[in-house]
Amino acid sequence: MRRTLFDEDHEVFRETVRRFLHTRAVPRYAEWETAGHPDREFWLEAGELGLLGTQIPEEFGGGGETSFLYNVVLTEEAQRAGLALGGLRVHTDICMPYFLDLATRAQQARWLPRLATGEAIAALAMSEPGAGSDVKAMATHAVRDGDHYIVNGAKTFITNGRTADLIVLAVKTDPAAGRRGISLLVVDAATEGFVRGRKLDKLGLKSQDLAELSFTDMRVPVANLLGEEGQGFTYLTRNLAQERLSIAVNSQAAASHAVETTVEYVSTRQAFGTTVGSFQNTKFELAACAADVEAGQSLLDRALLAHEAGDLGPADAAKVKLFCTELQGRVVDRCLQLYGGYGYILEYPIAKAYADARVTRIYAGSSEIMKTIIAKDLGL
Amino acid sequence: MRRTLFDEDHEVFRETVRRFLHTRAVPRYAEWETAGHPDREFWLEAGELGLLGTQIPEEFGGGGETSFLYNVVLTEEAQRAGLALGGLRVHTDICMPYFLDLATRAQQARWLPRLATGEAIAALAMSEPGAGSDVKAMATHAVRDGDHYIVNGAKTFITNGRTADLIVLAVKTDPAAGRRGISLLVVDAATEGFVRGRKLDKLGLKSQDLAELSFTDMRVPVANLLGEEGQGFTYLTRNLAQERLSIAVNSQAAASHAVETTVEYVSTRQAFGTTVGSFQNTKFELAACAADVEAGQSLLDRALLAHEAGDLGPADAAKVKLFCTELQGRVVDRCLQLYGGYGYILEYPIAKAYADARVTRIYAGSSEIMKTIIAKDLGL
Amino acid sequence: MRRTLFDEDHEVFRETVRRFLHTRAVPRYAEWETAGHPDREFWLEAGELGLLGTQIPEEFGGGGETSFLYNVVLTEEAQRAGLALGGLRVHTDICMPYFLDLATRAQQARWLPRLATGEAIAALAMSEPGAGSDVKAMATHAVRDGDHYIVNGAKTFITNGRTADLIVLAVKTDPAAGRRGISLLVVDAATEGFVRGRKLDKLGLKSQDLAELSFTDMRVPVANLLGEEGQGFTYLTRNLAQERLSIAVNSQAAASHAVETTVEYVSTRQAFGTTVGSFQNTKFELAACAADVEAGQSLLDRALLAHEAGDLGPADAAKVKLFCTELQGRVVDRCLQLYGGYGYILEYPIAKAYADARVTRIYAGSSEIMKTIIAKDLGL
Amino acid sequence: MRRTLFDEDHEVFRETVRRFLHTRAVPRYAEWETAGHPDREFWLEAGELGLLGTQIPEEFGGGGETSFLYNVVLTEEAQRAGLALGGLRVHTDICMPYFLDLATRAQQARWLPRLATGEAIAALAMSEPGAGSDVKAMATHAVRDGDHYIVNGAKTFITNGRTADLIVLAVKTDPAAGRRGISLLVVDAATEGFVRGRKLDKLGLKSQDLAELSFTDMRVPVANLLGEEGQGFTYLTRNLAQERLSIAVNSQAAASHAVETTVEYVSTRQAFGTTVGSFQNTKFELAACAADVEAGQSLLDRALLAHEAGDLGPADAAKVKLFCTELQGRVVDRCLQLYGGYGYILEYPIAKAYADARVTRIYAGSSEIMKTIIAKDLGL
Repeated sequence: MRRTLFDEDHEVFRETVRRFLHTRAVPRYAEWETAGHPDREFWLEAGELGLLGTQIPEEFGGGGETSFLYNVVLTEEAQRAGLALGGLRVHTDICMPYFLDLATRAQQARWLPRLATGEAIAALAMSEPGAGSDVKAMATHAVRDGDHYIVNGAKTFITNGRTADLIVLAVKTDPAAGRRGISLLVVDAATEGFVRGRKLDKLGLKSQDLAELSFTDMRVPVANLLGEEGQGFTYLTRNLAQERLSIAVNSQAAASHAVETTVEYVSTRQAFGTTVGSFQNTKFELAACAADVEAGQSLLDRALLAHEAGDLGPADAAKVKLFCTELQGRVVDRCLQLYGGYGYILEYPIAKAYADARVTRIYAGSSEIMKTIIAKDLGL
Repeated sequence: MRRTLFDEDHEVFRETVRRFLHTRAVPRYAEWETAGHPDREFWLEAGELGLLGTQIPEEFGGGGETSFLYNVVLTEEAQRAGLALGGLRVHTDICMPYFLDLATRAQQARWLPRLATGEAIAALAMSEPGAGSDVKAMATHAVRDGDHYIVNGAKTFITNGRTADLIVLAVKTDPAAGRRGISLLVVDAATEGFVRGRKLDKLGLKSQDLAELSFTDMRVPVANLLGEEGQGFTYLTRNLAQERLSIAVNSQAAASHAVETTVEYVSTRQAFGTTVGSFQNTKFELAACAADVEAGQSLLDRALLAHEAGDLGPADAAKVKLFCTELQGRVVDRCLQLYGGYGYILEYPIAKAYADARVTRIYAGSSEIMKTIIAKDLGL
Repeated sequence: MRRTLFDEDHEVFRETVRRFLHTRAVPRYAEWETAGHPDREFWLEAGELGLLGTQIPEEFGGGGETSFLYNVVLTEEAQRAGLALGGLRVHTDICMPYFLDLATRAQQARWLPRLATGEAIAALAMSEPGAGSDVKAMATHAVRDGDHYIVNGAKTFITNGRTADLIVLAVKTDPAAGRRGISLLVVDAATEGFVRGRKLDKLGLKSQDLAELSFTDMRVPVANLLGEEGQGFTYLTRNLAQERLSIAVNSQAAASHAVETTVEYVSTRQAFGTTVGSFQNTKFELAACAADVEAGQSLLDRALLAHEAGDLGPADAAKVKLFCTELQGRVVDRCLQLYGGYGYILEYPIAKAYADARVTRIYAGSSEIMKTIIAKDLGL
Repeated sequence: MRRTLFDEDHEVFRETVRRFLHTRAVPRYAEWETAGHPDREFWLEAGELGLLGTQIPEEFGGGGETSFLYNVVLTEEAQRAGLALGGLRVHTDICMPYFLDLATRAQQARWLPRLATGEAIAALAMSEPGAGSDVKAMATHAVRDGDHYIVNGAKTFITNGRTADLIVLAVKTDPAAGRRGISLLVVDAATEGFVRGRKLDKLGLKSQDLAELSFTDMRVPVANLLGEEGQGFTYLTRNLAQERLSIAVNSQAAASHAVETTVEYVSTRQAFGTTVGSFQNTKFELAACAADVEAGQSLLDRALLAHEAGDLGPADAAKVKLFCTELQGRVVDRCLQLYGGYGYILEYPIAKAYADARVTRIYAGSSEIMKTIIAKDLGL
């Protein structure tokens, strides 16, 4: 069935992105996997082409679009090119709303132009060692000292942690106030006391870095406070819907791409005197995957339209993340099987897709968290 | 997420249907389960209210609507009332298109008014003992004899078979021509040589009848030929998309209803000093079901819109039927489990829902057939 | 792989059982389904052949065997003959241990001879409306009055409830003592105040009855107390391992039988010009089922040997019940699908097998209860 | 339930292995992962301790045991220590039977002593690029030239390919004879014309190497022919049961170990103010896994006993491989999920276990091949 989500502008943008990725990203991808992240040059190129700041106002060097769908196109095309560019997605989909919605004009003037060009890479630092996504257990704290906060603590699982220049950091400004004592600061990575910890060696997603960060008597200007003090939990929660939707977009595109490339593979791959694709089992596996993918796409597109209309609730986003990431897990596993031994060799993209897929059921709220949210919405 | 499918007219119709079913169907449902089908009075009442012929032109006593969505509302409300009224669905969703699209004006004038009022109940007779859905193996044949065809053969798995008055019957008019030798006749059940076989005792769906039919030297006027001779296979195939969509609507509504009623049940049901709904397992099971249901609904609603636009291909319909019926199977099974022992007792609707659900993965093309169609569409 | 469980005596017994069931049960099975339970004559015949009391001491008319495996043979052969004879299993596997292990010699002399001949049918009455398997919430109570207990209350989900003569009844003799206030009485169904409630209409298992029982000022002699007062919970718990093992035996046999008969069916059933069994999907489905069944059988046989050695713990039994009943659910569902439309028609045993299977994941402790027990054993 | 497979000698051996692996393998494992295979010193140490040749006759430096169960102990203990030592398994379980059963005494005298000490590492070279496990399509051929065969061709997916000294190589000696034209040669890696291709970069199993091999006018003495010319296919097939059993042993041990370590992890890991293990979902997931693991172990142990008795058929081995490898996939995935984000970080063994697991459903005959074998055994 045709998707009805995108208009002509999106499709023009898609063509631009596609060409850009094939010429500028695909040839360098192996290097990035070794390095652990895309090179800075790529960020600048993406910035120059306008991919990083489609939603940034024009006055600050962005595209001035309100639609989130340009970001969707970017994610879809990355997957279609076999690229895991989660670091970009963190920049454009997950961190950007904090700068767009919470920063004052003065703050925006300081930060947005560099975020648009790729001179500054963004990261979001929330999870902590030993606390995970349990906000109550957060230990990183910021104590007011004149015009500065003095921040101490540590964060983990930070995508872009090795490369980020501007970090949206969740801290406790009032440790006694629980959720209401959390605030968000924008930290410049050049600040004294900011230390990038070791890179975390992941199962997959080799081209995007994940790191620990630690802060020792790090002085952050009060002018870098995002929104109001004590409202951090509200802000984080509010942005989770888009974060989860972004992951679902990525998972859905990965699943869809896996089916497409596997159909191609089995159509040519010979076995026992015929093509793998001519076996009934192959047909049925891929048909089942295709139906699953169509359902996921329908759910996602509907959610994207609701999101465009400002009408996507937390439970909706949870359903979409749960369904699309579980779908990705199922589908990529079934597709890989059809490659036989080659499915286990990393030069075949399906092997990487398998390794990349496993985390999506976990991060930004695991499937268990999603179910908890949905159940609450059901009144349970 | 809100559904965007229905306009105000549909919602008014929904209210009408809901009231009607609760007053006229619910109280008599137990009787129909014993009898094996709704009583004729109910058909007439439904006809009088305009439920049976929303798509029949006004001149022939119908509602004159082009939208299929009124039928969707009818099915959804039946499920919501805990009623399996598949016989109605066969009449309105599956048989009606043959009369609307293939019948001549003269034929329509003879048949449509009675189909609109419920005086005539429709059935479709295609499957045969030993041939199943394999059209090539069809044995029922019609030999031209002047103004009549002489029909001999037998059909099976005929919903409404015990009660139908007008049967759309697939016959071979040219046995040597394979698929191109199939034609469709409308048979009046009063015709000599038409014999209703025994009622088939099913696992579920007790309120709708399933029967064998047989024909011995049955004389059917050539004037009862639908469309062109030899085009039967094309006609049957063309109508399969709506037939499968209709099943998907029913399965989806059943799954959705199961989740809703189970949420209610576990919210009040006590166990081990608390409600069943307070257990994490219960929450997670129902949350997973709810996400699944949302995906199914999104897929289905998208397909329904495509169908309204005349744009739903056979592989699309196959994906929707496959996904929604498999979904129904999974969801109803998981819901039933949460009822404990009561889930196995037929006075609890979930037990009936379980029995009713099992056939949807089989009839009108099994999941295996759906996968075959989808795989072909994938180029495999 | 060969099973190593049975010796020659068991195999001789198996032959006897097989012949008996085929001549005495199979021809009458349809009647029993209508009646809701086997006729009393059948019980007497089974008793005469020595099937009901293999473990009853010879002096009380039984077989004097210590091995539980004769009961296993009986269950396996019933399934192999397509018979759901759960009422017998309740008599021989579930109730018998109470009479064998807890009854005094004097009590045994009163009850065992009649249980051996089939003159008395046994039942176990534990679950209550609104309490389920939550023993703490049990409301039926017995108040001592001289040589009698006066019993009031109600029980539900009682297999053999419509026909049983001797009911092992769990009552609260000390309502304040929680689990330690539960005692077991043997109730003669002829006792005044004993009322059989309505038969519960089940999804499947049509040939065995399930009923509610109620007791109004029912006087039960203290001489009918089983074991010690207040020890009922301990006794019930102790016997649960065998009860669950018995269910696993039945589920495993059902799954195994389903695969065997489906292999036969698909080997002859024609579709699209060949046999259903020649499709790769059919082969793969049945192969997967066969591997599953082999695993279940291995687990079960190992558990049976442990049980023979008195070495089967509650968590072991829970694992076996969980695995074998879930297996039955999966396997019977997959097999049914391969029958196409016929799988939904009750004259095909697979349709009944499907309806029969659904309760095994629920009764005698649902899958959720099994998991709770296993988790506790894991230290969680 | 207790396992009844092992006697005291096995348990003594187990202790030896356990100590050895913890002192000699665990500390060097990270190095081996980087290098792509264990160092040669380790092989020699394992040889010295008698681990490599338990089944080699004493006169040739081995343990002289007939039981396969010592190898099972070795595999189980490796998994329990978190080590993927598939290269050893290829040596002891998969290649050894060729040397033990097919080699002449003179050949054994040349090869077995070095295989026992670890001076020679064995590999089996059967699969080819483009042919996979389709023996008919094998292209590597050997042409007789006096006392030598001249071998040309290439093999792929060769475990130990980078390090092996003695390679059991399948070649076509009679290309026209199909399966009956295949022979087995033992190739010394020092032979001219033997070229080790590049190491294949795998998703997991980083500590064991997988490589391509190619042969250009490689002269192999006729004295290195194993068994009879033309019987290679028969020999390969005969040894497949043990190969698959060996994989099942490894998969089962991996699954079992995953459950054990995950139970430990969730028992201490804090989340939301409690341990992860205290959530009902965690309990239920691990309980389901534990039941699954118990079933797999029962199936496997039964198969191992049958194998010891020389009584394990190809379909039996196929069922065991299918069940235990699918089990491993399910269980490791469910366990990983309970680690949250840490499950994706390679320093947590569960992440490696996940990557390691994926190939077992593919190699040595994929799940699809297993189903094909089982279906044939069912008569389909």
